[in-house]
Amino acid sequence: MSKTVQGNFFEDFRVGQEILHATPRTVTEADATLYLALTGSRFGVHCSATMARMAGLPRPPLDDLLTFHLAFGRSVPEVSRNAVANLGYADGRFGALLYPGDTLIAASEVIGLKQNSSGTSGTVYVRTRARKDDGREILDFVRWVMVAKRDPASPTPQAVLPDLPDHVAPERLTVPPGLRPRHFDRVLSGSLYRFDSYAIGERIDHVDGMTIDEAEHRLATRLYQNPARVHFDAHLAREGRFGRCLVYGGHVLSIARSLSFNGLANVLHVVAINAGTHANPVFAGDTIYAWSEVLGKADLPHHPDLGALRLRLVATKDRPCADFPDKDGEGKYLPEVVLDFDYWGIVLR
Amino acid sequence: MSKTVQGNFFEDFRVGQEILHATPRTVTEADATLYLALTGSRFGVHCSATMARMAGLPRPPLDDLLTFHLAFGRSVPEVSRNAVANLGYADGRFGALLYPGDTLIAASEVIGLKQNSSGTSGTVYVRTRARKDDGREILDFVRWVMVAKRDPASPTPQAVLPDLPDHVAPERLTVPPGLRPRHFDRVLSGSLYRFDSYAIGERIDHVDGMTIDEAEHRLATRLYQNPARVHFDAHLAREGRFGRCLVYGGHVLSIARSLSFNGLANVLHVVAINAGTHANPVFAGDTIYAWSEVLGKADLPHHPDLGALRLRLVATKDRPCADFPDKDGEGKYLPEVVLDFDYWGIVLR
Amino acid sequence: MSKTVQGNFFEDFRVGQEILHATPRTVTEADATLYLALTGSRFGVHCSATMARMAGLPRPPLDDLLTFHLAFGRSVPEVSRNAVANLGYADGRFGALLYPGDTLIAASEVIGLKQNSSGTSGTVYVRTRARKDDGREILDFVRWVMVAKRDPASPTPQAVLPDLPDHVAPERLTVPPGLRPRHFDRVLSGSLYRFDSYAIGERIDHVDGMTIDEAEHRLATRLYQNPARVHFDAHLAREGRFGRCLVYGGHVLSIARSLSFNGLANVLHVVAINAGTHANPVFAGDTIYAWSEVLGKADLPHHPDLGALRLRLVATKDRPCADFPDKDGEGKYLPEVVLDFDYWGIVLR
Repeated sequence: MSKTVQGNFFEDFRVGQEILHATPRTVTEADATLYLALTGSRFGVHCSATMARMAGLPRPPLDDLLTFHLAFGRSVPEVSRNAVANLGYADGRFGALLYPGDTLIAASEVIGLKQNSSGTSGTVYVRTRARKDDGREILDFVRWVMVAKRDPASPTPQAVLPDLPDHVAPERLTVPPGLRPRHFDRVLSGSLYRFDSYAIGERIDHVDGMTIDEAEHRLATRLYQNPARVHFDAHLAREGRFGRCLVYGGHVLSIARSLSFNGLANVLHVVAINAGTHANPVFAGDTIYAWSEVLGKADLPHHPDLGALRLRLVATKDRPCADFPDKDGEGKYLPEVVLDFDYWGIVLR
Repeated sequence: MSKTVQGNFFEDFRVGQEILHATPRTVTEADATLYLALTGSRFGVHCSATMARMAGLPRPPLDDLLTFHLAFGRSVPEVSRNAVANLGYADGRFGALLYPGDTLIAASEVIGLKQNSSGTSGTVYVRTRARKDDGREILDFVRWVMVAKRDPASPTPQAVLPDLPDHVAPERLTVPPGLRPRHFDRVLSGSLYRFDSYAIGERIDHVDGMTIDEAEHRLATRLYQNPARVHFDAHLAREGRFGRCLVYGGHVLSIARSLSFNGLANVLHVVAINAGTHANPVFAGDTIYAWSEVLGKADLPHHPDLGALRLRLVATKDRPCADFPDKDGEGKYLPEVVLDFDYWGIVLR
Repeated sequence: MSKTVQGNFFEDFRVGQEILHATPRTVTEADATLYLALTGSRFGVHCSATMARMAGLPRPPLDDLLTFHLAFGRSVPEVSRNAVANLGYADGRFGALLYPGDTLIAASEVIGLKQNSSGTSGTVYVRTRARKDDGREILDFVRWVMVAKRDPASPTPQAVLPDLPDHVAPERLTVPPGLRPRHFDRVLSGSLYRFDSYAIGERIDHVDGMTIDEAEHRLATRLYQNPARVHFDAHLAREGRFGRCLVYGGHVLSIARSLSFNGLANVLHVVAINAGTHANPVFAGDTIYAWSEVLGKADLPHHPDLGALRLRLVATKDRPCADFPDKDGEGKYLPEVVLDFDYWGIVLR
């Protein structure tokens, strides 16, 4: 009866269900510029035609995480409007780079369902795919969210848990067409370090802190056309669990990646998302710090100028990372840890 | 003597006076993107080349209300710099769509004057016209404002009240050239509802709320180059009637239109402004909610793919709209109602 | 050992040292639009293709101060990451205009060093040059900063003080190629005043005030990719001298220049920086006002349509400028004065 979209509840999802998401989005140079102003990113490939050309690309592509947020944002109305929590990411693979003028269209497939023991909610697993309007694949990732039930008395669906890899195998990484930084200037890029400079197990404190203002996370989240109410409606939030609006976890991720420039400036491209957890909530006024750990290294056959680093990017709030804050003795994240993101980055060799 | 523009006072206006406004503005894709980030708009025609083409347009035009704000902003230095209040709008008609690369030039004609009984101020009626620099008309609307007198002892002008229509007659609506959504995808647009789905008298609660931050309304108002001091000068405002800066009513209008996507996603184009009132002031921190009422429906001859809906868009602050907050028993707006905007929208048939 | 850039300390600088700064930046129309939304600028040459053409230019160049901030921002990681204070500017000259699509690359040369008597810090003088990637010079200016020593016991370098002009001599001003406003419309530009209208010694109160929000100065400073921690890290700042984040002085300068439109609308181009001081710190919530004084006038040979005005732009916080706040009887800036900026502007003749 209502013409208003109220979003899906747990019992509305079926394994195998395909959802085409509304509002294809044409990106422009302005998305890149606003993203830069919101995150402080200094990665040259995304803000410099000179550096993009040195990397073999025709012009600056959009930041990979901006692409991720655009795909994610499109899926919110159908997938997570009634989400209680974003639980995790897995098996994310980036394909073609997104350039100004391209249009991104997103669709999701329900790949798993499991009702919680409480009977009031359940976990929904979706694989979200973003492609250009010419069909080229941009991004493909799995996320799972806890979604409320409309009616606790509705039947319990059979539990289906997707088989997800612990991490994306290096042989499944797609080097974007053209990326060939044979003449990359490492003074102009901001760091002399490259693939061979990094050792497995190495940890890097990214030193700087970035405080998030209310207007900033809202501008970012609207830029992605992510309409999740928890980020925008302070009137509603005052009655809620935290008493104020939550910062979109993706904005925290982007800030952390931006901070990681100081130490990882030659990680040119986020090529895969192995796993990700928003460990604790972030609110306006919190200051984000970050550190990284090298989890793995891989050669990229046929790409002698490039290597892949498996990196863990950990972000904290109001706690500098000189001592690499992580989990406590029982394996629980410290309360200051807000993000634990495991990804493959393509780095200059 | 002073080289500084102090703005016109009530006694500076003459009926028939023509004012060409400064700073023609060339719009770009960045205006569209920043508008989207400020308002959260998801209307596909304005952010998606794919959807624009499906609607028959060569590429995404700027949002109609962004166009309105640019025209309005240009008129502020001469018309409303010394305004005590913005009282209303009428007879607004949109013509050619504004595309990135176009330049908007605005001019106003004084069409009415009436001194208030207090003798310290008066109402000024202006018709503001925006055109492209090639002369094509973009927008034409009437607004009236209460403007202070410089000198209460200056003579009282003869009252002239313009003859304004209650609403724009449907036969005066201009369908923008090219708008012909024969192949419009209603999954991608975000709603299956179209002209025939809506009934006169129907009310729609747009559900979501959007809190306005100080930086956001200032960014929006500066984007429109609207220099009204009440929005920007908190030092001055602390001594004033409200003790803080007022949010530009146009920003509230844009937020409300953006919220109305949830229920009116296929209202592709705001084609006329019938009336508008900023019923109560809005300040940073207020959360805007909105509801709509269908006031009328009209066919658009020669446009079999389109219809026109006359809509009333009501916005509130800090009060959800499930019960459609409106006026009290004496016809006075409830204190939570901040906007009452009557417009014609062109909707998919 | 650390892969993280910690910035140079006083003892790391040598006179004659050349530093190429990271991250060449390609500017777009979005930089211009975001700058406009952050500062409220209404100068037509920068936001209007019509006005740019009337001025003889092919299309709107970026605002001169935006160009300055991009050059400045690039130099921060190597020059002023460990700065205690920004002390001054001198001998700044603008060359080719920066247009959307151009790439700016910056380099600095250390031209002076002087350890402070305390032995814990010293003054570093650098000349920063910005050029396009085709080599054309955009901007060249000197700034000096007080930089902490890493180790107070490290040796004292020989003091070298650069020979800096009191102001840029008018014969060294470079009128940008093409700038020839023979058909400039002074109604559309916002002011009828031109070169001959201004007298040496004249003072202009720019009347309006602009309050700076936390998100705004951070967005601006990130747009320039200026990573100075004092602007972004509120957690760190709470322990510091002021207890909160400092606003980048360049943002204050841009706000003041934007306010100066009201009185100096036909100052088309900032062509030289004679001197500049950030007299007192600015914090979020402060309201900026500004006034100007005409310090000098110069003809521009071969440019009969143009003249040069040497202007002093003074900005205050939380104090309107009707009485031109300046220094006290002992020559010390009043506590409300935040900026004293001496520049040459090219003005319509």
